Amino acid sequence: MLTFYYAPGTCALASHLALEFAGAPYEAKRLDFKQNQQRSPEYLRVNPKGRVPALVTERGVLTETPVLLQYIAQAFPQAKLAPVNDAFLLAKGNEFNSYLCSTVHVNHAHKGRGYRWVEADDSASLEAMKKKVPQTMAESFALIEEQMLKGPWVLGESFSTSDLYLYTLTRWLEGDGVDVKRFPKVADHMRRMEALPQVQKVVALHQ
Amino acid sequence: MLTFYYAPGTCALASHLALEFAGAPYEAKRLDFKQNQQRSPEYLRVNPKGRVPALVTERGVLTETPVLLQYIAQAFPQAKLAPVNDAFLLAKGNEFNSYLCSTVHVNHAHKGRGYRWVEADDSASLEAMKKKVPQTMAESFALIEEQMLKGPWVLGESFSTSDLYLYTLTRWLEGDGVDVKRFPKVADHMRRMEALPQVQKVVALHQ
Repeated sequence: MLTFYYAPGTCALASHLALEFAGAPYEAKRLDFKQNQQRSPEYLRVNPKGRVPALVTERGVLTETPVLLQYIAQAFPQAKLAPVNDAFLLAKGNEFNSYLCSTVHVNHAHKGRGYRWVEADDSASLEAMKKKVPQTMAESFALIEEQMLKGPWVLGESFSTSDLYLYTLTRWLEGDGVDVKRFPKVADHMRRMEALPQVQKVVALHQ
Repeated sequence: MLTFYYAPGTCALASHLALEFAGAPYEAKRLDFKQNQQRSPEYLRVNPKGRVPALVTERGVLTETPVLLQYIAQAFPQAKLAPVNDAFLLAKGNEFNSYLCSTVHVNHAHKGRGYRWVEADDSASLEAMKKKVPQTMAESFALIEEQMLKGPWVLGESFSTSDLYLYTLTRWLEGDGVDVKRFPKVADHMRRMEALPQVQKVVALHQ
C-alpha cells in the first residue's frame, strides 16, 4: 500500500492522477496549506522540503512530480503511462515533464510564492513578479501549443503521464490571467481530459 | 555520433560530464551566450527553447538536464552512471537531480536572469532578487548537506549522475556569495570531483 500526500491547487494533482490511472493501491492524505500542515514536524519527517507531493513506498519516500510520474509508470507498467522500455521515447516524455516542472511551474509560482526569491515584505517586487505571470505563462503555453503537444495526446497517439501533468498546469491558466482559448490544442486537450472518469474522481478530491 | 550543445558557466556542464564518464561518442559544440547564439535561427531549430544543454541523437533532440542525465545513463549502461534497473533507486537519484533543477538552479537564476520573471527595466526588483540569492542558495545547500548527500557520493557508495550535477551547481556557490566551506560534506565532494581526470578535461572546455 502506498501513501500519497497532496494539497488542493498544487501540482500534486498530476501524481494523484497517475496513481489513479495506474490502478495503484494507495491511500491519499490531504494537507491543509492554510494551516501550514506542510511545515508540521510530522510532515517534515516525511518530506524535509515541506512540499507536496510525497509518496511513501515500502522502500522509502519519493518526492518531485517528474520523478513520481516516472516511478508510478515503471512500477505499474500494465497501465502504459510511459514508454518505459524505450530510453529515447521515455526521455521525450520526461523532457516535456521537466519543462513543466522547471519552467512553467516556476513561472506560475511567481504569482503566489514570490517570497521565495525576494524578501517577504518587499511588496513592490512581489507585485512586479505577479504582474508578469500572465505573460510568462502565455509564452510557455504558446510553446506547448506550437512545438510540444503533438495531438491528440502530448506524445502523439499514446496517452501518458505528460497528459496528466499538462492538464494539471492548464487548470492554473485562468487564475494566472490567461485565457486557455488562445491555445486551441491545449483547450481541446483539457476538455478531453475532463471527460475521463478517473480525472473527475480525483479532481473532486482536490476541491 | 551524438552532438552536444553547451555554453560555459551553465548547467550543461553536468550532461557534458555524463557524456565523458559514459565514454559516449560525441561532438561538443560551444555556444557563445554573449553573442546570443542560443537565440540564433540555426540553434532555435535545434532547441526552440533557446537554452542549453541540447543533445542531438539519431532519433531526435533531447533537452533538460535531468532528462539528459538519465538518458545518457540508460544509453551507456556499462558506465553505471545510474541504477537503471531498479525503479526505486533510479527515482531516488532523479529526486536529487529534480531538486537541483527545479529549486537550486531556479534560486541561482534569480541572480543573473531575474528578467525572466519581472520587467527587464525594473532594476529595483532585479536587485531585490539578486540580494536574496546568497540566502536561498545557502538554504538549499544546507538541506543537501544535512539530508541528501549520503557520502562519499550523493547516493552513497555508488557514483552517479547526481554527483556530476551536484558538482556543477556547487561551482556556482562562490559567485552566488556563499562560502562552500559552510558545508563540509559538499566541500569534500567538490574536492574529490576535481581530482577526477574526466572532470578536469571537461571543465577546461567550459573556461
